Amino acid sequence: MIIVMKQGATPDQVEGVAAHIRELGLTPHVSAGEERVVIGAIGDEAKLRDRPLDMLPGVENVMQVVKPYRLASLAAQPQRTCVTIPPVSPGREPVVFGDARVVVIAGPCSVEDPDMLLAMARCVKEAGGRVLRGGAFKPRTSPYAFQGLGVRGLQYLAEVRRETGLPVMTEVMDTRDVELVAEVADVVQVGARNMQNFNLLKAVGRCGTPVMIKRGLANTIEELLMSAEYVLSEGNPRVLLCERGIRTFEPATRNTLDLSAVPVLRRETHLPIVVDPSHGTGHWDLVAPMARAAVAAGADAVAVEIHPCPERALSDGSQALLPDTFAQLMRQLAAVAAAVGRTV
Amino acid sequence: MIIVMKQGATPDQVEGVAAHIRELGLTPHVSAGEERVVIGAIGDEAKLRDRPLDMLPGVENVMQVVKPYRLASLAAQPQRTCVTIPPVSPGREPVVFGDARVVVIAGPCSVEDPDMLLAMARCVKEAGGRVLRGGAFKPRTSPYAFQGLGVRGLQYLAEVRRETGLPVMTEVMDTRDVELVAEVADVVQVGARNMQNFNLLKAVGRCGTPVMIKRGLANTIEELLMSAEYVLSEGNPRVLLCERGIRTFEPATRNTLDLSAVPVLRRETHLPIVVDPSHGTGHWDLVAPMARAAVAAGADAVAVEIHPCPERALSDGSQALLPDTFAQLMRQLAAVAAAVGRTV
Amino acid sequence: MIIVMKQGATPDQVEGVAAHIRELGLTPHVSAGEERVVIGAIGDEAKLRDRPLDMLPGVENVMQVVKPYRLASLAAQPQRTCVTIPPVSPGREPVVFGDARVVVIAGPCSVEDPDMLLAMARCVKEAGGRVLRGGAFKPRTSPYAFQGLGVRGLQYLAEVRRETGLPVMTEVMDTRDVELVAEVADVVQVGARNMQNFNLLKAVGRCGTPVMIKRGLANTIEELLMSAEYVLSEGNPRVLLCERGIRTFEPATRNTLDLSAVPVLRRETHLPIVVDPSHGTGHWDLVAPMARAAVAAGADAVAVEIHPCPERALSDGSQALLPDTFAQLMRQLAAVAAAVGRTV
Amino acid sequence: MIIVMKQGATPDQVEGVAAHIRELGLTPHVSAGEERVVIGAIGDEAKLRDRPLDMLPGVENVMQVVKPYRLASLAAQPQRTCVTIPPVSPGREPVVFGDARVVVIAGPCSVEDPDMLLAMARCVKEAGGRVLRGGAFKPRTSPYAFQGLGVRGLQYLAEVRRETGLPVMTEVMDTRDVELVAEVADVVQVGARNMQNFNLLKAVGRCGTPVMIKRGLANTIEELLMSAEYVLSEGNPRVLLCERGIRTFEPATRNTLDLSAVPVLRRETHLPIVVDPSHGTGHWDLVAPMARAAVAAGADAVAVEIHPCPERALSDGSQALLPDTFAQLMRQLAAVAAAVGRTV
Repeated sequence: MIIVMKQGATPDQVEGVAAHIRELGLTPHVSAGEERVVIGAIGDEAKLRDRPLDMLPGVENVMQVVKPYRLASLAAQPQRTCVTIPPVSPGREPVVFGDARVVVIAGPCSVEDPDMLLAMARCVKEAGGRVLRGGAFKPRTSPYAFQGLGVRGLQYLAEVRRETGLPVMTEVMDTRDVELVAEVADVVQVGARNMQNFNLLKAVGRCGTPVMIKRGLANTIEELLMSAEYVLSEGNPRVLLCERGIRTFEPATRNTLDLSAVPVLRRETHLPIVVDPSHGTGHWDLVAPMARAAVAAGADAVAVEIHPCPERALSDGSQALLPDTFAQLMRQLAAVAAAVGRTV
Repeated sequence: MIIVMKQGATPDQVEGVAAHIRELGLTPHVSAGEERVVIGAIGDEAKLRDRPLDMLPGVENVMQVVKPYRLASLAAQPQRTCVTIPPVSPGREPVVFGDARVVVIAGPCSVEDPDMLLAMARCVKEAGGRVLRGGAFKPRTSPYAFQGLGVRGLQYLAEVRRETGLPVMTEVMDTRDVELVAEVADVVQVGARNMQNFNLLKAVGRCGTPVMIKRGLANTIEELLMSAEYVLSEGNPRVLLCERGIRTFEPATRNTLDLSAVPVLRRETHLPIVVDPSHGTGHWDLVAPMARAAVAAGADAVAVEIHPCPERALSDGSQALLPDTFAQLMRQLAAVAAAVGRTV
Repeated sequence: MIIVMKQGATPDQVEGVAAHIRELGLTPHVSAGEERVVIGAIGDEAKLRDRPLDMLPGVENVMQVVKPYRLASLAAQPQRTCVTIPPVSPGREPVVFGDARVVVIAGPCSVEDPDMLLAMARCVKEAGGRVLRGGAFKPRTSPYAFQGLGVRGLQYLAEVRRETGLPVMTEVMDTRDVELVAEVADVVQVGARNMQNFNLLKAVGRCGTPVMIKRGLANTIEELLMSAEYVLSEGNPRVLLCERGIRTFEPATRNTLDLSAVPVLRRETHLPIVVDPSHGTGHWDLVAPMARAAVAAGADAVAVEIHPCPERALSDGSQALLPDTFAQLMRQLAAVAAAVGRTV
Repeated sequence: MIIVMKQGATPDQVEGVAAHIRELGLTPHVSAGEERVVIGAIGDEAKLRDRPLDMLPGVENVMQVVKPYRLASLAAQPQRTCVTIPPVSPGREPVVFGDARVVVIAGPCSVEDPDMLLAMARCVKEAGGRVLRGGAFKPRTSPYAFQGLGVRGLQYLAEVRRETGLPVMTEVMDTRDVELVAEVADVVQVGARNMQNFNLLKAVGRCGTPVMIKRGLANTIEELLMSAEYVLSEGNPRVLLCERGIRTFEPATRNTLDLSAVPVLRRETHLPIVVDPSHGTGHWDLVAPMARAAVAAGADAVAVEIHPCPERALSDGSQALLPDTFAQLMRQLAAVAAAVGRTV
């Protein structure tokens, strides 16, 4: 931690800050510049992190030196984490997030009925997708909108999982539902609106299932890593990070997909990186170009929404691809993956 | 709902949209302009709200005519809601949010220990504040930061409430804790990070306690009203709305306090409006000017954080006022309230 | 400047940075913490400001210690600047920005015709406004929109100025027009879209006329001060800073008026602060509450738009007040100003 | 234009709006829904665009039906524009923006000295770049920062252009310099800060040289197209649009590169699309992944900054690639271009 003193801060004020640092168990290192005094605090910066040192007399501002995440940081674990989903049934291959093969996750936004879900799962599998996504519990802005099939939706997911052998990713919205969801899901999803629902993060951190955390609409990349830190520090090392768009002033897209987050995360963390161009753009015709761009930027996985009849979808139909368009996208992704030395 | 067709949309496409509207139980009203056809859907717009009509062939875009909130809207209830907190003990006055008297809510960010809490409650009361705030469950970006005293914090709040007669506002973060918190709190707070934790909104909607919903950092005013709608539609009409800053590119403040939300909410809803300049700015020296501005803009209540020794606070010390500064602010607020025809 | 080295940076890399600092004429001050080395550069930080020290091997990041503005900073000039507009005709009072009396600037968005301008100027004067604003050169998003009357508009302003004795504020958009505009205007306005039109800033810095710089929609407060620095460093000390809303995700208002900028600027600079709630909100019914809030927050001046018949205005009619509403607002502002120890 | 009346609007108010529409030369089309009346204005919407119809009594809000850009729209010109730069010297190939071959533009941020510029131009050419960029006039946040070599910089560009045969792109910041810059430049650049410097847009619209308009940090895609409309409507059809990052709350990157703008622009306009990942990210190590992503998303050109010794660059060194890294990026871009059916 570096404490910059105000111009004209008195020796007493400098000593006050130094004493405060000592009291917290660190060593102050005072350095008098031309215009002002700067104090470095040598020792475990975490002890100072929540202390409002800027409230001490004479302090102008306080700057962190060390990143606040530890377990999630590449510095702490220089080897990339591979999150492996074991085969759903014997004889199948596991799905590995974080190796050279890019994982494509696909499925309908909501689980609407068992037949449609099965049909979509078969499309995903046939086209080369390796994980089925589908929402049973749906966070909706309006209380009057379709809220998902809930437990029944989970059952349909379990059946289709068994039937097709595709591992399943689905969202959990409530601490009370974590066990229930984790029984069915191969990957539990924490949605963007719950990225800082810290009790939910702790709860999924305590269950053994892999977790995908979606970046909140107003959250920085550092905060996303801190949310991962909640899960990791509870003992669950199987965390995927998902960029799905942030909120900006631009109205042409539902959100602004921040693809730069992909190389930034690659520089900062060992955890695998997923991109969701469906929620990131909100319009089906932008999904394919942004999925290609995600793979070109280095994403480990891409998650897209599909629907047999988007204009009749119960949620987010505008961003859903038709099965044919999805199959075409899979071929494009294979080509782009090859261009960056990977496969799909 | 108004559906704008693409330039050159065919008669078949127009009829397709019209048929779709009819199928959903509304009446299409086709209007051919010079450049393009526009179709109005006459009937209950709510039935169309989640339907991705933009996915139908020939559609360019779709525009809502009716606001998506009903119970929260001023159109639905033209008389302003007063949320009344009954007296904590016999002989005291109730606290009313939404009448001519501006309510000041104050207290420490976190409940740290019972003595400090009691001391702060006395300062609040003495200076003219009418509700005590203090966090027992604390949402923190880092898992390594102080997470609040939890149940013990609630107990301290209950004791100080009894001791001072001040009603208490405290945050609930988890659906599992709603009952526990509602037993102690006179107002249950749903924090900014949980504004779209819809299960939590439903749960506080089912308990009878007044609820203050804080606007999320990336949430629009319309979304704040939709979150209120969750609580109202579960049968709890006692909802306060709190502006506490949104996230923007400006680094000089922790958030950008969007005071325009005050008159916008006043135009849109009958619910009382609270402003939190402490979280809204993040710096103690900006709290007083912005609290004054909030009252001048028409807020029904103001919530500020105080601490006996901000540089030792366990959370958010940088934005806490000293008791003396708070007392001084109370005098300023009284003057500004008088200037806009209110009292404090 | 403080240079934080990467964890594991080699002694050679540390020495490389130190040598680089010495080469630029400063003194390195190396401080080895537990996790990493931090290097302070003692001397004139301005010499390092544009140097990409983060490109040197082993550097993690670089932090500024000193604010980049000098002439605009309160540290450099602790006494507040009063910008005085001399009386338009003998016997009148000067208008002073920055003293205890809050200045109200008002007028139509565009100069449309001489009669309307004169009528509006009389309304401004009668209600207690002290500066007339009106645009002759209009920056418009669309090339097909009304672009202002240009030179003819300036002439009308000059006539009405003479007629009423009200000093005039009007915008300059082009370096080629600075002289022309400065001949007529008592205050030259640099609009939000030109806040970083650096040649224009230099040009108005070279003319003696007071300048009001409006904050750009995507510009930080620090950048606003740097734009002031352009004008100040060219020798023109008569600079007003205007907050008029920044661009955020919120669609309920045209922009998000960042009133916190008022106390932030007061802490950082000696220059007078103006707030424009008309452009800041974009809706006439939000103008009065936000104008009151601006005065409560400490603004030295408020600028509002008025029009005799807003629905026929050639630009920005939606945010214009009727003369009656303006007169009513003036009375409200007087009350709020009194509450914070000022007059209008 | 569609005018939505308030719930409870009177027949007189409806007739008032209808009369106003007729007066402006359009035909009102009144449609009474269940909850409210909606009025369509049939005719040339442009006539209504600047009219504040929301100020008429009884109006709730007003919605545009037609996009405000005409010449820039794909609807107006369904065939994609190819902007061709004629060969610098006989025997060379022209450079075409908008065909199957992706154009790479590269060079130093600032022209610093003639030798460095020539060396960099040779690197660009050797690696397969086809346009040289370099700034002679530099917009800098601080008046104390290096402001570019100005006219001397233009001369160096002219010499290196002659020497290497590479066409040159450079920025113009001032209406007074347009002719001067256009004499040397094959493409004149209007920078992000000047995207809404409308006089500058008109001036470059009047010169015959191709123009690249960079998106402003707070500007929507629609506004970028409106700025293009300024140039097009002055008679210059040779316009390139450049995405270079918008301002958001995320501090990890200098700006947030909005790559979704690429497919959005492709859907809306016939003009070629350039992406600048150097300014878009601000960090050299993010440039290559985002340049690859830009090509995968469908960009027609990519502009990157290079420098022989970034840590000594006079501007923006942190985002400059070394010549070797640039050459490597060119090979990557060739692979990605091939994957999407293009070449470099």
